[in-house]
Amino acid sequence: MLLNILLLSLQISLLGTTLAGNILIWPGEGSHWLNVKVIIDELLKREHNVTVLVASGALFVTPSSQTSLTFETYKVPFGKERIEGLIKELVLIWLENRPSPSTIWRFYQEMTKINTDLHMVVREQCDGVLKNGKLMEKLKSGKFEVLLSDPTTLCGEIIALKLGIPFIYSLRYSPASNIERHCGKVPHPPSYVPAVLSELTDQMTFADRVRNLISYQLQDYMFETLWKTWDSYVSKELGRPTTLCEIMAKAEIWLIRTYWDFEFPRPYLPNFEFVGGLHCKPAKPLPKEMEEFVQSSGEDGVVVFSLGSMVKNLTEEKANLIASALAQIPQKVLWRYKGKKPATLGPNTRLFDWIPQNDLLGHPKTKAFITHGGANGIYEAIYHGVPMVGVPMFSDQPDNIAHMKAKGAAVEVNINTMTSADLLGALRTVINDPFYKENAMRLSRIHHDQPVKPLDRAVFWIEFVMRHKGAKHLRVAAQDLSWFQYHSLDVIGFLLTCVASAMLLVTKCCLFSYQKFIKTGTKIKKG
Amino acid sequence: MLLNILLLSLQISLLGTTLAGNILIWPGEGSHWLNVKVIIDELLKREHNVTVLVASGALFVTPSSQTSLTFETYKVPFGKERIEGLIKELVLIWLENRPSPSTIWRFYQEMTKINTDLHMVVREQCDGVLKNGKLMEKLKSGKFEVLLSDPTTLCGEIIALKLGIPFIYSLRYSPASNIERHCGKVPHPPSYVPAVLSELTDQMTFADRVRNLISYQLQDYMFETLWKTWDSYVSKELGRPTTLCEIMAKAEIWLIRTYWDFEFPRPYLPNFEFVGGLHCKPAKPLPKEMEEFVQSSGEDGVVVFSLGSMVKNLTEEKANLIASALAQIPQKVLWRYKGKKPATLGPNTRLFDWIPQNDLLGHPKTKAFITHGGANGIYEAIYHGVPMVGVPMFSDQPDNIAHMKAKGAAVEVNINTMTSADLLGALRTVINDPFYKENAMRLSRIHHDQPVKPLDRAVFWIEFVMRHKGAKHLRVAAQDLSWFQYHSLDVIGFLLTCVASAMLLVTKCCLFSYQKFIKTGTKIKKG
Repeated sequence: MLLNILLLSLQISLLGTTLAGNILIWPGEGSHWLNVKVIIDELLKREHNVTVLVASGALFVTPSSQTSLTFETYKVPFGKERIEGLIKELVLIWLENRPSPSTIWRFYQEMTKINTDLHMVVREQCDGVLKNGKLMEKLKSGKFEVLLSDPTTLCGEIIALKLGIPFIYSLRYSPASNIERHCGKVPHPPSYVPAVLSELTDQMTFADRVRNLISYQLQDYMFETLWKTWDSYVSKELGRPTTLCEIMAKAEIWLIRTYWDFEFPRPYLPNFEFVGGLHCKPAKPLPKEMEEFVQSSGEDGVVVFSLGSMVKNLTEEKANLIASALAQIPQKVLWRYKGKKPATLGPNTRLFDWIPQNDLLGHPKTKAFITHGGANGIYEAIYHGVPMVGVPMFSDQPDNIAHMKAKGAAVEVNINTMTSADLLGALRTVINDPFYKENAMRLSRIHHDQPVKPLDRAVFWIEFVMRHKGAKHLRVAAQDLSWFQYHSLDVIGFLLTCVASAMLLVTKCCLFSYQKFIKTGTKIKKG
Repeated sequence: MLLNILLLSLQISLLGTTLAGNILIWPGEGSHWLNVKVIIDELLKREHNVTVLVASGALFVTPSSQTSLTFETYKVPFGKERIEGLIKELVLIWLENRPSPSTIWRFYQEMTKINTDLHMVVREQCDGVLKNGKLMEKLKSGKFEVLLSDPTTLCGEIIALKLGIPFIYSLRYSPASNIERHCGKVPHPPSYVPAVLSELTDQMTFADRVRNLISYQLQDYMFETLWKTWDSYVSKELGRPTTLCEIMAKAEIWLIRTYWDFEFPRPYLPNFEFVGGLHCKPAKPLPKEMEEFVQSSGEDGVVVFSLGSMVKNLTEEKANLIASALAQIPQKVLWRYKGKKPATLGPNTRLFDWIPQNDLLGHPKTKAFITHGGANGIYEAIYHGVPMVGVPMFSDQPDNIAHMKAKGAAVEVNINTMTSADLLGALRTVINDPFYKENAMRLSRIHHDQPVKPLDRAVFWIEFVMRHKGAKHLRVAAQDLSWFQYHSLDVIGFLLTCVASAMLLVTKCCLFSYQKFIKTGTKIKKG
């Protein structure tokens, strides 16, 4: 396996010497940026010139000192705090109204509100580039060959089309898989493909399937209304009547940030590549002091605990509740936490402002991972085969944990309702029941046993689009059909009309013959 | 690119040293066997023990002197001539009734007849193994880890299940994609995925889409009736009530013998691998005499002509017609033909009993390929970027040529109605119009530019199934649903009933209130 990976890296890196192009990046925020940054670093290694378009008010996307990477900063009328505020609001909505049959309506109402705000921010970003003549001129003269865009932050596709270059999407999913389904034309049968945010799996009861279908419809309704507001903007920018969906469909390749170790198998199209876990890599040695703490755990090993980069602190009550549960396990705990030290913190638990998460998860002493369920963190756990306790909070996190639960690699604890005993019980289960470790290892084996590593596949297809100026041979003809043509409704309607007409004709003929026969009979009788 | 391929081969071959298992093959006939043989050779190179189950009456699958390959011959009550006869009959049906709106009904009637005969032969093959207790015992003790089966020759799946081992399919397609759609659960929207044998492309007019939908329905009807006859056989063999489709759905991986250079993009599932052209390889030098003939063509180059391995001769009239067309082009022609030398044969044309087709197509002097349109030959032309004149005769050939025509790499000539001028015109077009060469080269570039070569991918997934004892993580949950559950008909029915009930209730309430109101009004008036 190692030899496999080594040789492939060698192959890809050697191939790279034959290519060097100009690549433009339209990044997303938060973990989306962290993920695309890994692709960027690989592209830089392969000697491409990469330029990132970054808003002056961006939160995570910050120009680094990396000299080989160009940041093109454009002005926007908002600051970092605006994004930070929206994220906080988003987390709050989720914590208060996490979708369940009783809260679903309120949840989607709140989500529509905050999404409207988010779209306003994106619109301002979009204006920041498109209405900046000087910047657009500079970009035009930049001779870019491809644009890599995150479609959850719209506008990348408009910029690409205005520059006349092909674009590639990198995404985990869109609400109701709306973009993938309606623009990308990927079939998502609601009978076994769970709607995103629904926390359902591919094994659904009748009631689940009812809920799933409703989830699709609700999300479609909520988000399509929002996306529709972009149609006139896009048409104006491109100088012809069009829709957002129509231009999104022009994505040459869709790099999806999952794989079948994590995702439930479902239909997809030839221009979809599942590159989940592309950021994963073998663990590096830990800092000396941390290694000593880990080693001090002896046979019991350690537990790694992080709620991700977006949520920094918890309420004091919640922190104490968690700390007291952690204090009761024989394992040592490394907790990434910036808040006030909880009073109940046990001697086995150490707080850190930041932890080398991947290196810790890859450490042989690591027994379990307490995670908020971000896709990046889950993938690191899968990569290293570590079972999880999920404490999901918002966005795709509850869904991600539902996936890991269904695959037998995680136990979930509800952050709103949990007690110390719940967390303790969950931890003991994933640590002591071999079922969870076995499943985590199974997923790890699946992840490692691919013909080509996810990062190499992502880079391959980006370079493919550069070499061939697109990937039109992978584009389904469905994208030229209207929705009723796509579903063959016109053909079915026509055939039903034919059948009905034929039946009518036959009935008329029969009736006519019958009447003729009756008349003739009467005449004969009379005669 | 070359470096890419070299390194990948190195990687795969090195990986191979870590594995060596026992593989059982249930082969198809004709070109199916030629294709699977390439996979077998690669598996042998990787030191696996491969055993092929071969019927005593097999036509193409003949035990070779290859010592590393084991042939397990089982007795069947038919001889080679039976298969030969059926193939002749099949070609004749096609030549006389090639599906068109006017002949479609007769065509499917004839096809059903011959397919019934073919299934009888397959049933005899199946009995030859399953009812041979000694052979089954031997196979059981053979410790096979996987069975590679061609589902157009049924029974491989039954043998695998009886031996308790996973199985993999290798196929081009089944009629109406029936197996892939109904058993494999791959969505085939009839609005843009042309039915096999329909000769339609992914760009369809309304009339085409009507024809396509009807093609699916007709083929479904004809072939499902045939396949249904297997349900009781399968149930009896496996000792439990089941269906052929249910057990076919258990295929771990589906190796499809096409790729997006040849196929129109369409939805598929994670356990489908498109390995078209896995048999293609760089050209080797030609035999001395042949090379001299090719070189003698000078600037004009040569045309390669073969109607494949299944059709050996033509009528004298047809052969003369073809020869006289060939005599009029400035190119030299190499014609694989075993029949009587046509009187009109020009001095530029040379007949051969057999030609090294791949080496000729890869020769820099080759300008065009006249082909019957077999998938193997077409892939060799794609690999080497040679434009084609298609003279399709039966089975998938008309469809294959339709694909190449749509992709701009071929011109078709109808073997039934063609004149010398037709063939001459077609040849001149593909040779002199750069459009065809450019498209053939474009397909060639697409074919060569894949992250992993088709043959390596095929072998990777076979070995994956051996390493993991299956590939269950790629299996869609749709396979546990009935057809009405899959299409959410029960859920839609339930929701419609709910809506109808709610409407009824509201109407009743309104009516009741209204009557109450009227009554009260009347009482008041009366009062």
